[in-house]
Amino acid sequence: MSEQNQFALQEYAIGDYDPQVLRYQRGSIPTASEDQALVKTLYLSLDPTNRVWLSPDDTYLPRIELGAPMRGFVLGRVLESRSPQFQEGDLVYGLGLWQEYCAINAAELTNVEPIEGVSLDNYVNLFSMIGATSYVGMVDIGQPKPGDTVVVSGAAGATGALACQIAKVLGCKVVGIAGGADKCQYLLDTGCDGAVDYKSCDVSDEIARLCPEGVNVFFDNVGGQMLDEIIARNMALNSTIVICGAISQYGNVTDPDSQYHFKNITVLGFKRIRMQGFVILDYVDRYDEIFEQLAEWQAAGKLKPRSHILKGLDQAAEGLKMILEGRNQGKLMVEVAPSNQVSRGLR
Amino acid sequence: MSEQNQFALQEYAIGDYDPQVLRYQRGSIPTASEDQALVKTLYLSLDPTNRVWLSPDDTYLPRIELGAPMRGFVLGRVLESRSPQFQEGDLVYGLGLWQEYCAINAAELTNVEPIEGVSLDNYVNLFSMIGATSYVGMVDIGQPKPGDTVVVSGAAGATGALACQIAKVLGCKVVGIAGGADKCQYLLDTGCDGAVDYKSCDVSDEIARLCPEGVNVFFDNVGGQMLDEIIARNMALNSTIVICGAISQYGNVTDPDSQYHFKNITVLGFKRIRMQGFVILDYVDRYDEIFEQLAEWQAAGKLKPRSHILKGLDQAAEGLKMILEGRNQGKLMVEVAPSNQVSRGLR
Repeated sequence: MSEQNQFALQEYAIGDYDPQVLRYQRGSIPTASEDQALVKTLYLSLDPTNRVWLSPDDTYLPRIELGAPMRGFVLGRVLESRSPQFQEGDLVYGLGLWQEYCAINAAELTNVEPIEGVSLDNYVNLFSMIGATSYVGMVDIGQPKPGDTVVVSGAAGATGALACQIAKVLGCKVVGIAGGADKCQYLLDTGCDGAVDYKSCDVSDEIARLCPEGVNVFFDNVGGQMLDEIIARNMALNSTIVICGAISQYGNVTDPDSQYHFKNITVLGFKRIRMQGFVILDYVDRYDEIFEQLAEWQAAGKLKPRSHILKGLDQAAEGLKMILEGRNQGKLMVEVAPSNQVSRGLR
Repeated sequence: MSEQNQFALQEYAIGDYDPQVLRYQRGSIPTASEDQALVKTLYLSLDPTNRVWLSPDDTYLPRIELGAPMRGFVLGRVLESRSPQFQEGDLVYGLGLWQEYCAINAAELTNVEPIEGVSLDNYVNLFSMIGATSYVGMVDIGQPKPGDTVVVSGAAGATGALACQIAKVLGCKVVGIAGGADKCQYLLDTGCDGAVDYKSCDVSDEIARLCPEGVNVFFDNVGGQMLDEIIARNMALNSTIVICGAISQYGNVTDPDSQYHFKNITVLGFKRIRMQGFVILDYVDRYDEIFEQLAEWQAAGKLKPRSHILKGLDQAAEGLKMILEGRNQGKLMVEVAPSNQVSRGLR
């Protein structure tokens, strides 16, 4: 066996994402080079940031060359290791490719310590870059104090939902912004104090109504006009905006003229606002510590990660469209290999 | 004597500032109410932020009502005190009015401790909200590390020049942006490692040339397009933008449609940038500590405040235009009462 299924980048995506830019094809199974591990993909994580990587220009990662396999976060099992960090059979998580087998650099791979009773999809959701993003964004960057008012956009998405739940753990009043009544109900059911349906109201009017004292921390996954209006109308003095993502702007993310044009940046000065971006790849060496805290909160029933699992690698390109259109319910991922085939050593 | 000279707000300023919006007139001398001091104005500070206060809307301070005296920072002598904090004869600094005598709330006034050999204008420049702004903006908000590359816009202005000098004290490489060869020469003469004349080159091209590793801290007094381009092209990863001012945007500062529209805000995420505003009025209770540090640096020859002194209160409205057009050379202020008339108790 030397061939596998994979998605390769056929053309760069401009504007609305068309799944056809990714081609499902047969490719060769790689071998592990020095300091790499060969990993059998169990789950492929589908994330808004995948859309960023389809850009024709470098972003926070280099662009993908045309014809090369698509990049993605994967949970997998080590089949062969040429790094002292990993052993055959290890469960691992890292930055791989949309294919059945990935040769991943040790620096971009972490060991996963399975927790008793925690199902595998949780290692693509809570105990992954998703959970870490929610934690770092809310705890390290947002730094809300107990009693603060926290607003999260994209709140029914994987990262946003956990960010809301973490803010509740920190003792905050939490209002989530999401699209549609079902998602808003989900937010209320999982602990949010308020939910704003951006499809059925003026968002900043509704936030002003729900948060009359202003917003202390805004954890933003959406960017664009919604962010601009919240800066101008809703942020409290000495408040913080966490730039976690900007899904509304990913269509032409490297073309400034195609980006939403912000009118209220001077307000950051008057309102003494801190607006701060981060990229979770900078925090990989803190994952152990972060996951320990998340596990404790989960065990106490304070975090309720929700997974939305598609079956079969061939679903990945369409799955990304689901995310970009907000049709996923919880953390979207593809089960690439059924987990009963992944006992130690089995290829 | 019950009348004095003053400037009152005749009409709100929209777009380019016309000194005619401020009327020089006779008004009554106020009396000190409970918790106020009556202060004889020695120097009136003229600052870019005065332009913000001419807005028809509230900004970080409430708008000034039409017909009311213009607001300004003043250095003066207490003539009468109804606050236990101040005594007749005290030298004081605070938020007063453009007039010869001001009744100022104790909360908006601080005592000035004269330093041997330091001339009075220094208490409107280095040991004032100007010096405090440079200090808080660079040290507290910017937080550059030794060896970092720091860029300052409006660098030949009062706050900008001190910000450059403080960054040098902190061991940074410092590049200033200013308009014209004379100002750039001044920056090089006072310790900057590089100077960019925005009137004669493409600013972000020139910063890219002078700072090939990127900018770690950008201390911005200008805002608008220059800021937008520096975000996109010059900031290093994990860098900081200090929003100190936005003089390019003060013409219609409360009208979002008239503001420059930023195209590169999504880049804050990818580059992990922290962009943070502040208002010096929040830091008044730290002035003593800050001024002590500034005095130590000045005594060591590391700070070189430069004052530009106009004579006579009637010069104030035209003076503000000088600042907005960049025609001042150093901290602009008006000497309202010659200082040999201000011995203790003399009215």
